[in-house]
Amino acid sequence: MKPVVAIVGAGAIGCYYGGRLAQHGCDVHFLFRSEYDSVRSRGLVVRSPDGDFSIGPETLHAYRRADQMPRADLVIVTLKTTANDQYANLITPLLADSTAILTLQNGLGNEERLAGLFGRERILGGLAFVCVNRAPDGTIRHLDHGQIKLGEFSGPARERTGQIARLFADSRVPCSVLENLAAGRWEKLVWNVPFNGLGAVLNMSTDQLIGSPGGLSLVGRLMAEVMRAAAGVGIQLPPDLPERRIADTRSMGAYRTSMQIDRLEGRPLEADAILGRPLAAAAAHGIATPYLQVLYEMATLLDQR
Amino acid sequence: MKPVVAIVGAGAIGCYYGGRLAQHGCDVHFLFRSEYDSVRSRGLVVRSPDGDFSIGPETLHAYRRADQMPRADLVIVTLKTTANDQYANLITPLLADSTAILTLQNGLGNEERLAGLFGRERILGGLAFVCVNRAPDGTIRHLDHGQIKLGEFSGPARERTGQIARLFADSRVPCSVLENLAAGRWEKLVWNVPFNGLGAVLNMSTDQLIGSPGGLSLVGRLMAEVMRAAAGVGIQLPPDLPERRIADTRSMGAYRTSMQIDRLEGRPLEADAILGRPLAAAAAHGIATPYLQVLYEMATLLDQR
Repeated sequence: MKPVVAIVGAGAIGCYYGGRLAQHGCDVHFLFRSEYDSVRSRGLVVRSPDGDFSIGPETLHAYRRADQMPRADLVIVTLKTTANDQYANLITPLLADSTAILTLQNGLGNEERLAGLFGRERILGGLAFVCVNRAPDGTIRHLDHGQIKLGEFSGPARERTGQIARLFADSRVPCSVLENLAAGRWEKLVWNVPFNGLGAVLNMSTDQLIGSPGGLSLVGRLMAEVMRAAAGVGIQLPPDLPERRIADTRSMGAYRTSMQIDRLEGRPLEADAILGRPLAAAAAHGIATPYLQVLYEMATLLDQR
Repeated sequence: MKPVVAIVGAGAIGCYYGGRLAQHGCDVHFLFRSEYDSVRSRGLVVRSPDGDFSIGPETLHAYRRADQMPRADLVIVTLKTTANDQYANLITPLLADSTAILTLQNGLGNEERLAGLFGRERILGGLAFVCVNRAPDGTIRHLDHGQIKLGEFSGPARERTGQIARLFADSRVPCSVLENLAAGRWEKLVWNVPFNGLGAVLNMSTDQLIGSPGGLSLVGRLMAEVMRAAAGVGIQLPPDLPERRIADTRSMGAYRTSMQIDRLEGRPLEADAILGRPLAAAAAHGIATPYLQVLYEMATLLDQR
């Protein structure tokens, strides 16, 4: 039987992954907000180096309100974290007894908040390593990568973890299972904190940030602080991780992180999830992170103006 | 006898003050760089709430090279601090035995560098409290304020200090004498560090920076660090200075600092004089200034791209 999947927050990432699942036989239902009308008339169009595809308006399950959607086996949350106060409202109508909830959102704190609302057992978290955005005409442009790493919030992987991973893997989305989700989150923060944070605050792309000794030094300081914060919460990341992430970044070319784009387009910044939560976690364990502190305050300030 | 005054670095500030002195009878000689040709044909035009004035091309003493200028009684240095490696080249030809050198440049370190080249006795420093810029057509636009506070580099005020102050005061430039130049420099840094630094790094005007609790907090942290650094080098500033400077800033409206404008126009930032030197002074006295540290690194990075 085809699993019923709900995509909550069908921005570029939700449309891309939901589109891949629908393309490969899942019964996918998309919750749109501002894009609803245009998607209703146009359908979902994805351009990708792995092959373009589209779902016509007659077969696309698009919704404007969660209470019009069917109950799902799997809810995939791809909201901006700045909309997390909508969780109860948007997710509650989608839940049956055994519904799993997978958040692919950025940063820290999302699983905890979902668990507080819907119970720890339902919750999985995933890290999406993907470059994807929405073109002005509404087309989803998949630029590069696409892998997901996912894991259980409440403990090690179990049977459903592998099933969900296979759902993605069978839909042209490379997917692996994390035995320790928190370690995966912190590992991703080692990259996200400097490049999203500095990218937004200084309005600089990744290649600009690592293109000078001063930039490399700032990126390196922030990475070192995130490594120390992770160690403080009990997660030992590989010591050569920063070095490897810098090397990966060199191969990406000129890339604008989501937070830089949010700033440029005047949208709220995910400063709390990506910077504020790691900062608070570090502080709670007595780890000094002065560069992260200043970066967080600056990003918050940009958000307030 | 009319004193001979040389303006080295005739940007907006040099043209404004040199223009006032010339308007009131001083024999002023201006060293231009990129603006030379246009000034040669147009003369110097100043628009000011205190009265517009101009000096026609036939009476304006404009030069392209310092070695074509007469020796001066007073050399006024209004170069960007980013051009301080030109001091020897630009100032040496202007010096007679008793020539005084007054730098109106921003930040720390200018007097020291001039003293190292030309002897401590010649050197005075001044703080220019003025809003002035150059319009696209080359006109100098004096927007507000204009006061100068000046003092001796090598000790307390003496006879020539008052004479130079009177030269300005007689030329419609309010001018007072500082008994302690270093204290005046640090007092000005309490304002310049946050508003020039954050203005450039975040691309925010003064009213935006103080328009939110987050902005006020960041500005306040930086002001407190500069106050502590000043205390560390032996200068006790009035404890209510930050509060008064914030109040002054509210009355300024939407103002872009010179460093923000330099960033917007792609010019080098005065990060060393305004941020780096105070940071180094604090470090040399064991004063921790983490916000200033991060701000300086960010400003330097913006300069390198």
